[in-house]
Amino acid sequence: MSAMFQYEGLVERALREDIGTGDLSSLIIPGDCLGEVKIYAKEQGIICGIHIVDMVFKKVDPTLQSELKVKDGDFITPGMVVMKIKGSLASILQAERTALNFLQHLSGIASATRKLADLVADLNVKVVDTRKTLPGMRNLQKYAVRIGGGQNHRFGLYDAVMLKDNHLAAVGGLSEAVQKVKAQIGHMVKIEVECETLEQVKDALACGVDVIMLDNMSLEDMKRAVLMIDHRAIVEASGGIREENIREIAETGVDILSVGRLTHSVKAIDFSLVVDDMKPSILKHINEAEKN
Amino acid sequence: MSAMFQYEGLVERALREDIGTGDLSSLIIPGDCLGEVKIYAKEQGIICGIHIVDMVFKKVDPTLQSELKVKDGDFITPGMVVMKIKGSLASILQAERTALNFLQHLSGIASATRKLADLVADLNVKVVDTRKTLPGMRNLQKYAVRIGGGQNHRFGLYDAVMLKDNHLAAVGGLSEAVQKVKAQIGHMVKIEVECETLEQVKDALACGVDVIMLDNMSLEDMKRAVLMIDHRAIVEASGGIREENIREIAETGVDILSVGRLTHSVKAIDFSLVVDDMKPSILKHINEAEKN
Amino acid sequence: MSAMFQYEGLVERALREDIGTGDLSSLIIPGDCLGEVKIYAKEQGIICGIHIVDMVFKKVDPTLQSELKVKDGDFITPGMVVMKIKGSLASILQAERTALNFLQHLSGIASATRKLADLVADLNVKVVDTRKTLPGMRNLQKYAVRIGGGQNHRFGLYDAVMLKDNHLAAVGGLSEAVQKVKAQIGHMVKIEVECETLEQVKDALACGVDVIMLDNMSLEDMKRAVLMIDHRAIVEASGGIREENIREIAETGVDILSVGRLTHSVKAIDFSLVVDDMKPSILKHINEAEKN
Amino acid sequence: MSAMFQYEGLVERALREDIGTGDLSSLIIPGDCLGEVKIYAKEQGIICGIHIVDMVFKKVDPTLQSELKVKDGDFITPGMVVMKIKGSLASILQAERTALNFLQHLSGIASATRKLADLVADLNVKVVDTRKTLPGMRNLQKYAVRIGGGQNHRFGLYDAVMLKDNHLAAVGGLSEAVQKVKAQIGHMVKIEVECETLEQVKDALACGVDVIMLDNMSLEDMKRAVLMIDHRAIVEASGGIREENIREIAETGVDILSVGRLTHSVKAIDFSLVVDDMKPSILKHINEAEKN
Amino acid sequence: MSAMFQYEGLVERALREDIGTGDLSSLIIPGDCLGEVKIYAKEQGIICGIHIVDMVFKKVDPTLQSELKVKDGDFITPGMVVMKIKGSLASILQAERTALNFLQHLSGIASATRKLADLVADLNVKVVDTRKTLPGMRNLQKYAVRIGGGQNHRFGLYDAVMLKDNHLAAVGGLSEAVQKVKAQIGHMVKIEVECETLEQVKDALACGVDVIMLDNMSLEDMKRAVLMIDHRAIVEASGGIREENIREIAETGVDILSVGRLTHSVKAIDFSLVVDDMKPSILKHINEAEKN
Amino acid sequence: MSAMFQYEGLVERALREDIGTGDLSSLIIPGDCLGEVKIYAKEQGIICGIHIVDMVFKKVDPTLQSELKVKDGDFITPGMVVMKIKGSLASILQAERTALNFLQHLSGIASATRKLADLVADLNVKVVDTRKTLPGMRNLQKYAVRIGGGQNHRFGLYDAVMLKDNHLAAVGGLSEAVQKVKAQIGHMVKIEVECETLEQVKDALACGVDVIMLDNMSLEDMKRAVLMIDHRAIVEASGGIREENIREIAETGVDILSVGRLTHSVKAIDFSLVVDDMKPSILKHINEAEKN
Repeated sequence: MSAMFQYEGLVERALREDIGTGDLSSLIIPGDCLGEVKIYAKEQGIICGIHIVDMVFKKVDPTLQSELKVKDGDFITPGMVVMKIKGSLASILQAERTALNFLQHLSGIASATRKLADLVADLNVKVVDTRKTLPGMRNLQKYAVRIGGGQNHRFGLYDAVMLKDNHLAAVGGLSEAVQKVKAQIGHMVKIEVECETLEQVKDALACGVDVIMLDNMSLEDMKRAVLMIDHRAIVEASGGIREENIREIAETGVDILSVGRLTHSVKAIDFSLVVDDMKPSILKHINEAEKN
Repeated sequence: MSAMFQYEGLVERALREDIGTGDLSSLIIPGDCLGEVKIYAKEQGIICGIHIVDMVFKKVDPTLQSELKVKDGDFITPGMVVMKIKGSLASILQAERTALNFLQHLSGIASATRKLADLVADLNVKVVDTRKTLPGMRNLQKYAVRIGGGQNHRFGLYDAVMLKDNHLAAVGGLSEAVQKVKAQIGHMVKIEVECETLEQVKDALACGVDVIMLDNMSLEDMKRAVLMIDHRAIVEASGGIREENIREIAETGVDILSVGRLTHSVKAIDFSLVVDDMKPSILKHINEAEKN
Repeated sequence: MSAMFQYEGLVERALREDIGTGDLSSLIIPGDCLGEVKIYAKEQGIICGIHIVDMVFKKVDPTLQSELKVKDGDFITPGMVVMKIKGSLASILQAERTALNFLQHLSGIASATRKLADLVADLNVKVVDTRKTLPGMRNLQKYAVRIGGGQNHRFGLYDAVMLKDNHLAAVGGLSEAVQKVKAQIGHMVKIEVECETLEQVKDALACGVDVIMLDNMSLEDMKRAVLMIDHRAIVEASGGIREENIREIAETGVDILSVGRLTHSVKAIDFSLVVDDMKPSILKHINEAEKN
Repeated sequence: MSAMFQYEGLVERALREDIGTGDLSSLIIPGDCLGEVKIYAKEQGIICGIHIVDMVFKKVDPTLQSELKVKDGDFITPGMVVMKIKGSLASILQAERTALNFLQHLSGIASATRKLADLVADLNVKVVDTRKTLPGMRNLQKYAVRIGGGQNHRFGLYDAVMLKDNHLAAVGGLSEAVQKVKAQIGHMVKIEVECETLEQVKDALACGVDVIMLDNMSLEDMKRAVLMIDHRAIVEASGGIREENIREIAETGVDILSVGRLTHSVKAIDFSLVVDDMKPSILKHINEAEKN
Repeated sequence: MSAMFQYEGLVERALREDIGTGDLSSLIIPGDCLGEVKIYAKEQGIICGIHIVDMVFKKVDPTLQSELKVKDGDFITPGMVVMKIKGSLASILQAERTALNFLQHLSGIASATRKLADLVADLNVKVVDTRKTLPGMRNLQKYAVRIGGGQNHRFGLYDAVMLKDNHLAAVGGLSEAVQKVKAQIGHMVKIEVECETLEQVKDALACGVDVIMLDNMSLEDMKRAVLMIDHRAIVEASGGIREENIREIAETGVDILSVGRLTHSVKAIDFSLVVDDMKPSILKHINEAEKN
Repeated sequence: MSAMFQYEGLVERALREDIGTGDLSSLIIPGDCLGEVKIYAKEQGIICGIHIVDMVFKKVDPTLQSELKVKDGDFITPGMVVMKIKGSLASILQAERTALNFLQHLSGIASATRKLADLVADLNVKVVDTRKTLPGMRNLQKYAVRIGGGQNHRFGLYDAVMLKDNHLAAVGGLSEAVQKVKAQIGHMVKIEVECETLEQVKDALACGVDVIMLDNMSLEDMKRAVLMIDHRAIVEASGGIREENIREIAETGVDILSVGRLTHSVKAIDFSLVVDDMKPSILKHINEAEKN
C-alpha cells in the first residue's frame, strides 16, 4: 500500500470525529497503564486495511507498537488474530473504534469483490468498480477492490472519458460527441461510450473508441455485441451484476464487469479488539493508585 | 437540517475526489448550453440528503437552480421525481455522481432505520445508532438515522461516558470505574455501563449510572434485567438486532435498541438523473456550433 | 493530557502567526550554535500547559530536547524553573514567544480556578467553566480549568441541552420546550434549564430536567430553590461569582458554581526564558566564524 | 476593517468549536420561526469587533440581516444597543455565544488601550502592543489595539528585527550583532535593540539602529537615555507600564510605550443578546405547530 | 474554464501570501473611495487567466465589478485593455499584484505554446506539456497550454502509465515491465514507454503499448521509428524541442511533441493596472476628509 | 534554511498534485526493492533547494536516506552529483519529478541572481527581488534570491509601505499621503515612495521617507536624484534592469536594484536523477518474483 500520506487527512478527520475534545471514558485509565490487545476476526472473508489501522493507532499515540499477523488480501476465518497492539491502554481504547470502522468496511469490500472474482476466475474477464462510492472514501474503497482481486474503473471524471446518453443528447449524437472529445483531450486519455442498443455499439465502433460499455443489455444482445466488436474495443458489461448472474454475463465474452454495489452497498466484516494481557506492572500500578 | 456549514468540507472533498483536475467528458458541452434535469427514485424507501444534494450542485456552479419536490423523511416510490435542477448542463453533469452518491447512501440509512422503527412503533422504545459509522461520514449518517425515525446514541468518545469490559478490567472493577469517572467528568455528562450478566446489572444499578446496556443478553435475561432496574436507569439492548428479532427484543421492555448495521452495512437506495428538457436556445446553439 | 493531536492545528497556527516568513532576528545565530535555556516562573500560581510548550518547541525543531521539571497542576513560585530546553539556540529563540504565550495564559486560568476552588474546598460544590471562552482556545482553556481543580460545563451546543429564556419564549413556555426537546434528543444527553424565578424552578422540576440553573438569583432565593429541588436535579448557580462572594453562594447548598471570568477575563502568569549556558563548542564556533 | 477574508478561518473554527455536530437546544425552534434580536452593552468602554460579529451570524446563516448601530471605536455605555439582527431565530441563537465571545474580548482590548492612550493624549507618545498575544488571535487583537487608539509594534518575528540579550550573547556583543543583521536583512526592515543599561544605549546608538528599547529602566535612566539619543533613534519604553505609572514614564520623553497586558491579560466587556420582537407570524406558527 | 472551485485554494493562498496581516499602504485610502481601473497589455501574446484574475479581485472584495474585454486565448497587443474593474479603490489596489502575477505567468505559457503550435500548424502533430511544472501550479499551467493551442500530457503519476529506463531496469526489461503493469492497472489507463533506441521501439511495439516516446533521438532515427511503428502506437518526440528545431522534428512524422520548457521556464507577459477614472464623489470625499 | 515547517504545506500540495491517487507506473516495483540514486546537474549555475528536495523524498517515504553533496549557494557544473538518495526504489521514483521541479526552479532563480550580483559586486549596491512572484511560491523564491547573493524587498503588502502613483492620486498628493500613512502605521515600519520625476524625488525627500524608488528614470536623472538625496534616504532603481544595463544603472550611485524578472521569468536549471546502483538483494528479489 503506497502513497500512504494521501490517507492521513481522512484518518485524522475520522479520529477527530470520534475523539473530539477528548475521550471521557478512558480518562480513568492512567496514561502509563500498559497493555497488549489483539484484533481478531469474527467472520470469514478477505482482510483489507491493516496499514490504515496501524496508522490510526499511531496517530493517536506514536509510542504504540503493532504486530501485523496477516497482510491485506489474506483469507481470514472467525477467531483468527490479525493484529496485536502494545502500549498505553488508554491510547489503544481511544483509537479502537476508528480503527475497526476502517477495517470492517474495507474488508467488507475486499470480501465481496473476492466472491465475485472467484465466480469468474477461469474466464478471461475482470471485475471492476464504479464511481458509485462513499464520499471521501473513494481511493480507499478502490484499493480494497484491488485487494479483493478486482481492478479499478476510472477514478473520477478527470482520468478518462465516458460518454453517456446525456452527453450524446447534448451535442447531437454519438459520432459528433466522440469527434469533439478527441479534438480536445490529450493523447494519454482513453474514451469509453455507454451503449444501450446494438445500433449504438455499431456507431461507437465506427468512431474508434477504446471501450464500449453495454448498459443493462440482455444476455443475447451482449453476445451479439461481443461478436460485432470482435476485439476492436474493450467490452464492458454494466448494470445489476451480482452473484446470481455474474457467471452468465461473463460467459457472453465481455472483458470487463463493472459492479456498483462493491462500493455503494457494503456489508461490513466484523472484528473485535480484546485486551489480551496486562503486565504485572499495571496491576501493581492499580493497587498503588487505589491506596492514594 | 441546520448547521449546514459543517458539511461543506465533506462536500468539497467529495467533489474534488470526483472532478479532480476537471471533467474530461463534459468538456464537449458548451458552458452556456442550458438544460433541466430531474432526479427520480428507482426504489421505494425514505429519502434523505436533499439539502446535501442541493449543496453539491451549487458548489459546482452557484448559478444552478434547484426545485425540491420532497423533503427529507418523505416516503418515495419508484419513478417519483425528488428534485429538479436547471442551468448549465455541463455543470449539472459534473455534479451528478457526487450528488447521487450522497443521496443513495443517506436514503439507504433512513430507509433501513424506518423499517426497524416501524416494527416497534407501538412500543415505548427507541431505535438508535452506534459509533460503527463510516470514516468522515458520522454526522451525516446520524442525521439520516434521525430522519428515518431513529435517535442518536452518543456522537463520539467526547459527549458521554460508556464503560466497557476493557475499562472495567483496567481499573479493577465496575464500582471503582464508575466512582473514578464521576470524580472527573462534568455535571452535564451521562454515564452508561455495558453489562453482560445480571450480576453486573446489579452492580451498575448500585453505582447509580444513567444508562445500562445489556450486551448480547438472552431474551430471558433482558426481561429480568428490566424488572431489576425498574426505571432507575435507562435500559439499552445491543447486539445483533435486526428485522427478524427486533420485535421480541423490544417486548422485553428495554427503552433503547442500538443497531450497528444502520450505519456500517448500508444498502444504497437507487436514484437516477435524466435530462428532462433542453431549451430551444440550446438546439440553436448546437446547430450554430455545428456550422463553425 | 491526552489526544494531543487535537492541539496540533492551533500550535501550528500560533507559530505561523509569529514566525511567518522567517525569524529575521535569529538569522544571525548559526544553526549549529547550541545552548541550554530554562523557563522559570516570575509569579506564583498553578502551572498549566507544559506539554503544549513542549510541542511548540518540537514543531519548530524536532531535534530540541526538553526536560520538564514540574507537571501541570503543580504550585509554582517566583524563580522556580519549570522546564529546560537544549539544542539549536536559533530554534529555541524562534519558539520562545509562542511557547510562553500558551504557558502564561493557561497558567493564568488554572491559577484563578485554583483560587476559587480552594475557597469552597470543604463544601460539596464544584467550580465549573462556561462557553464564554476565547475563539479557537476553548478546549485548551477547559483543560486548564480542570488542571486548576475545576470541572467543565458543556463543551458546546452539541453535547448537552441548555434551555434559556430565548428558547422558552420561542416555543411558548418551559414545559412545552422540555417536552419537545425530550422528543428529539438521544438518551445520552442531559437537559438543563435556566431559571430566574422560583416559579420557573418549580416548573422545571415538574418537567423532570437533569440540571436547574439559578440565574443571578439572590442568596435567599437560591436557598429556597435548593430546598425546593431537594436533590431531584443538580443545582447550578450562575452570574457574577467571584472571590468576594463565592463562599456565601456556595453555602446556599447549590451543587455547581459556573464562572465565566475563568476563561473570558484571564490574567496571565508571567514566565521568562533565559539562556542558561552555552557549550564551549559554541564559543569556539563563534570565534572561528569571526575570523572568516 | 479590511482584508476580512483573513479572519474567516478563525471565525469558522470558533463556530465549529461551539456548534460541533449541531445545536441540540435550538432544535426545538422551527427553522422558519423569525425574530429580531438586539445586542446591547452592559458596561461602558470602546466597542470593537462588530464586523466580526456580523461575519459570525452570516456564516451560520447567510439569510440573516444585520443593522450596525455603532462603528468600531465608538464609546459605549450600559444599555446602548450596538447591533440588531433579524431572521431565523434558531440561526441567531446558534451564533450568539461565538459572536459575543469575539465582541467582549476585542472590546476589552480596545477599552483598555483607550484608557492608557487617553492618559498620555497630550504628550507626543504612542501606546503600542507586543507579541504577548493569545494563540491564533494576534491579528484581531492588534486590530483592537488600533481601534482603541494605540499603534502596533511588529506583527511577528518576520517583519522587523529586535535584538535581545539572548541574541547579543550568542554572537558576541551588540555591535557584532547589529553588523551581522544589517548584512543579511533587506533594506525595508527596521532594527530595534533592547537595552538594559545606558552603556548599551550608547553602543546601540553608535551602531545606527532605528529603534532603541529601554527595558525596565528607572525613570531617571530613561530621561538620560532620551537626552543621549537625541532623536537619532526612536525610543521605546517597556516593562510594567500600567495606568498608575504611564504618565510619569511618558514624561521622560520616550516616543513609544509598549504594553504587554493590552493583549495578554484582557478583561472582557460584557454584552447581552435579547430577543426584541417576534413577528405575529411566529406566534401563529407556534400555535399551529401546537395543534399538530 | 470550468471547475473553478479547484483554484480557490491557490488564489486564497496567493492573496494571503501578499496581503498577510493587511495592506499597510492602502490604509490611507478610505474604504468608500471608488474608482475604475483598467488592466492593459504591455506586450503582444496570447492572454490567459482572466477568470482567475476576476476571482482574485472578488475574493478580496465581493462588491467589485469587472468587465472582461477579451477572452482567454485572444491575441493581445501592447496597449490593449483586457479588463476593467470598478469599486473600492483600496480593495482593487490590494488585489492588483496577486492578480497580475497570475495573468503574466499564464499568458506567458499560452503565448509560448501558441508560438510553437503555429510553427507546426499545418502538420498532423500536437504540441503537449510535461510534468515539469511549478509546484502547486500544475493544473493552471496545463490549462494555459490548452489555451495556447497545445494539449496535455498526463496530469500526474496517477492517470496514465509511463515506463522509463529506471522502471525497466528495476524489473528486468521492457517486456516484463509492460506485462506486469498490464496485469495490475485498470482497462481505462493508457501505457507509454520511453525508448532511446530503435531496438527498444521494436520491443515496445511487440508488447502492445499505446504510446511510444522517442527520447532525444536523432532526426534520422525518429523517421525510422515512425515507419517502424506505422500507426500501431502513438509516437511522441521528447527532448530539447524549441522554436529552432520544432519544424524538422515534426516533419519526421511523429504525432506528439512534448515540451518541458512550456511550463518550467516561462517568460512572463507584462501587464499593467492603471486608475482610469475617479468618480466626482471621490474627490468630494477627499476634500471633505481634508477639512476634518 | 530555517522555519522549514512553513514549506510543508507546499511540498504536500506538490506531491498530491503529482501522485494523486497513486503512482501507476512504479506499482510494478516491489516496495522492498532497494536502490541508490544520484541527482546530478546538467547545467552550470548556483544550486538552491536541496533541503526542500530532501523534504520531498522524506514526505513520500520517511525511511529514505539522503546524503547532500553540496549546500545551497554552491556553484555547480554539468555532471556534478548534488545528492544521493537510498532506499525503496518505488518511493524514490514517486518523489523524483516533484523534487526536481523544486530544484530546477529555485536553482534557476539563484543562478540568475548570482549572475546579476556578480556584475556589480565591486559596487556598493544590492540586487533585490520584487513582489512579482509565482502564486504560492513567494517565500521559497525569495529564499532563492538570498542564496544567489541578492537581498529581499518587502515580502508583501503587510511588512512595509510603498506608495505608488495610484495611492498618491487617491489621497491628493505625495505629502498628504506620507503624512496620513505616518499617522497610522507603527514605529517599526519603513516607508518607500515611488517617484517618476525629480520633482517627486524632492517632495519625497521633504516628507522624510525611508526609501525613494526611481521608477524607470533615465541614467541622467538617476544620477541627479542620487546627488539630490545625498544619503538622506535609501535610493532604489527599478524598471527593466538586466545583464546588459545593470552595470551602468548601478554606477549612478543608487543603493538598491530591484529586478522583477528574477522571480517572474525564471529559466530552470536542468537536473537529472539516475539509478546508480541496485543491491544484489534486489536482483535476487526480482529473480524470485519472476519464478512465482
